Amino acid sequence: MATERPAKLRVFSLNCWGIRFLSQCCAQRYEMIAELLDREQHDVALLQEVWSEKDFLFLKNKLSSSHPHTHYFKSGVIGSGLAVFSKHRIQDALLYQYSLNGYPYMLCHGDWFGGKAVGLVIVDMFGLKAHVYVTHLHAEYSRARDEYLPHRIVQSWELLQFVRHTSCGAGMVILGGDLNMHPQDLGNRLIRAHTGLRDCYTEAATFDGCEDGHTLIADNHFTKKQDLVPFEKGIRIDYILMKGSKRVNVKCESLSTTKGSVADKPFPYSDHESLTAELALIQSEDNRQHGVRNTECSDTVVPVSEQMDVVSEARAVIKEGLCQTEVLQAKAMCLIGGGLLLLLLLLAMAFLPCLCSGGHFSFTTVGFLGAVCMIVLLSGALLYLFFATHIKVLKETEDQMKLTSNYLQTKLSWHSVSESSSSDGSLEHQPFKREE
Amino acid sequence: MATERPAKLRVFSLNCWGIRFLSQCCAQRYEMIAELLDREQHDVALLQEVWSEKDFLFLKNKLSSSHPHTHYFKSGVIGSGLAVFSKHRIQDALLYQYSLNGYPYMLCHGDWFGGKAVGLVIVDMFGLKAHVYVTHLHAEYSRARDEYLPHRIVQSWELLQFVRHTSCGAGMVILGGDLNMHPQDLGNRLIRAHTGLRDCYTEAATFDGCEDGHTLIADNHFTKKQDLVPFEKGIRIDYILMKGSKRVNVKCESLSTTKGSVADKPFPYSDHESLTAELALIQSEDNRQHGVRNTECSDTVVPVSEQMDVVSEARAVIKEGLCQTEVLQAKAMCLIGGGLLLLLLLLAMAFLPCLCSGGHFSFTTVGFLGAVCMIVLLSGALLYLFFATHIKVLKETEDQMKLTSNYLQTKLSWHSVSESSSSDGSLEHQPFKREE
Repeated sequence: MATERPAKLRVFSLNCWGIRFLSQCCAQRYEMIAELLDREQHDVALLQEVWSEKDFLFLKNKLSSSHPHTHYFKSGVIGSGLAVFSKHRIQDALLYQYSLNGYPYMLCHGDWFGGKAVGLVIVDMFGLKAHVYVTHLHAEYSRARDEYLPHRIVQSWELLQFVRHTSCGAGMVILGGDLNMHPQDLGNRLIRAHTGLRDCYTEAATFDGCEDGHTLIADNHFTKKQDLVPFEKGIRIDYILMKGSKRVNVKCESLSTTKGSVADKPFPYSDHESLTAELALIQSEDNRQHGVRNTECSDTVVPVSEQMDVVSEARAVIKEGLCQTEVLQAKAMCLIGGGLLLLLLLLAMAFLPCLCSGGHFSFTTVGFLGAVCMIVLLSGALLYLFFATHIKVLKETEDQMKLTSNYLQTKLSWHSVSESSSSDGSLEHQPFKREE
Repeated sequence: MATERPAKLRVFSLNCWGIRFLSQCCAQRYEMIAELLDREQHDVALLQEVWSEKDFLFLKNKLSSSHPHTHYFKSGVIGSGLAVFSKHRIQDALLYQYSLNGYPYMLCHGDWFGGKAVGLVIVDMFGLKAHVYVTHLHAEYSRARDEYLPHRIVQSWELLQFVRHTSCGAGMVILGGDLNMHPQDLGNRLIRAHTGLRDCYTEAATFDGCEDGHTLIADNHFTKKQDLVPFEKGIRIDYILMKGSKRVNVKCESLSTTKGSVADKPFPYSDHESLTAELALIQSEDNRQHGVRNTECSDTVVPVSEQMDVVSEARAVIKEGLCQTEVLQAKAMCLIGGGLLLLLLLLAMAFLPCLCSGGHFSFTTVGFLGAVCMIVLLSGALLYLFFATHIKVLKETEDQMKLTSNYLQTKLSWHSVSESSSSDGSLEHQPFKREE
């Protein structure tokens, strides 16, 4: 039954910090999270860092009546950590694993093992197809010297491309997750400019939560204070973004965050604060008047010049990332060279016994040298191949950005020349015609 | 200018077999391919196995006037091998690298290094947005004992999901490439049933080419006869698939293949035959009458029961693949165990010199043992991690297939109960409503 009253939709997002045996009070916090979700009955809950499938299954079991529809996205060595719990039926799911995601040898950072990705679930909601995305981008370990910036920009690009190209038939689009970027960081601007997604924090009619919408705050029991420097008060890196379609307008009526401590509980839900957005879905005039049943693709309303500027900025970062990676690949070559030298030395010791006649070399030394030689050679070869794939990814991203730039440039000139009726300057609106 | 006359579109696809220094007559064949494309002036040429960027640049240079718009998709260690040459402007490109693609230690097969993927370019053509996909799936090395079947089924699933979810706003959809599957193979049926794409070979009004549309034939100078056993006459593994939209009907007027030899040339273009499809684009009645300017998402017209059957078949293959991979992971564990035993032996030799007192062990032996120990340990650990990611991918694919099955089941029961006006039983066509 069509209605004039707006439908309401509550969306929840939380980075659960669920590293078994490493994250503090993990099991107790999952109990608290399950209790919260069961009580609050959000329409959709988007969770990140649910690293263990056992914890996902615990939540699934606890939420079987409040959120009977779930999907747990599996990728990488230990998983993507992404999970969706929904009151409404999930019709389909799709996963896109980011092509660049840190280095396997950075064990202390560990992002590489997580197989970071963006997951899409298509949810039947109020007779609409809602495209709901959940994601978690690579962490920023040092703002001053951020070696992962190109990785995060590649991920932002892949995320926006994935959202743009898979949300065409959507009745509405929701993206939630830990973007690991401040609101005005390049990647964030890139995503907003090229998808047309709007930030619930800036759009919300009312807000109740931490100052400036921070989701990583000093007042959180689990937060390491040094992670916040130089933003002592906190940072905002978790988001719920949204947009409607030609069929439905989406408005954010309210946004709230947790504020560190939880009433009657000894500790917070996570080291991140959770977000809850209340969205109102209003049938658009177009839809009412013309009874449009399927939604149509709509271009973003962000000015083309702004889109171009942000792509140019991103291209510069990708080019710098390419140089960095070429240096790393050269170092891998040096490692292979070192391994080969060591191998030569070992062969010389084997075939020129005079070298060892002094008895200076024990069995242990030679065994150790053999082992080291193989480690160096194998590591060098693997790293060389690894950086070769990184270079391919960076070049592909740069090529795609270049295509987009060129297209936007054409759009801009076409728009300024033709003063067409199409307000967004889209080239697709030419009539279907035969070319000779 | 809208017209009643159908617009014509010529699409070309060829697996170029472009392995520098390994494929026979590679440089000469690229000369021939460039000459062919320049002469034939297809609207879009989809190439696979252009492994070297130098060869792509050679083609790009040669075709700068006939096909000024190009994209070369970069992924994996040596690239995806996929390239698109277009007479019409490429507006955007997107790449999806398949999650499962063979094993890095199968050097003789080498698929893993290629970073197999599906590439999408959005081409402005006759005022329409054509979504053009090019892909190359994992090869089948033995039909009787096909250890890569689960890989190819995962790739087919990812391909169909990518096409379904990114083609929603398309005016028409074209997919070309080397699917490495016979026409009635499971993966092929899966793709056709779930995307609604139609095979140009079966749809073409006229056909001129090898018997049964074969693209790998015994008469080709470069084909190894043993690759064709037990299909001595040839096999059809290269395809051009297509579908229209609510705006445009697409019909295949003719399809042709090369037939091995090339007039006035000493050898064929490749070890595969090329395909050329001539498509007619006819403005649909809907579009003429209502002036629909954007295309809408359309479900496939394949019966739901057929879609369900083929997904069930695919799920069985994925489950078998999961068992196989778990066995491989167990073997990797054994390798780690073996490495640890060897390490113990070496430590015993170092700290219990009596073991070596007989002088049976030379420096060479001990150095060699140390090296072997490290190779075994490292390989075991890497393989364990590698198979862990495979298991994640297989489980994710199975979960997605299960979701699709459930959705199709609901669609089927809904359709049989409601006898709704919607001919495809889609659930999305309910009115936008508020749920209490």
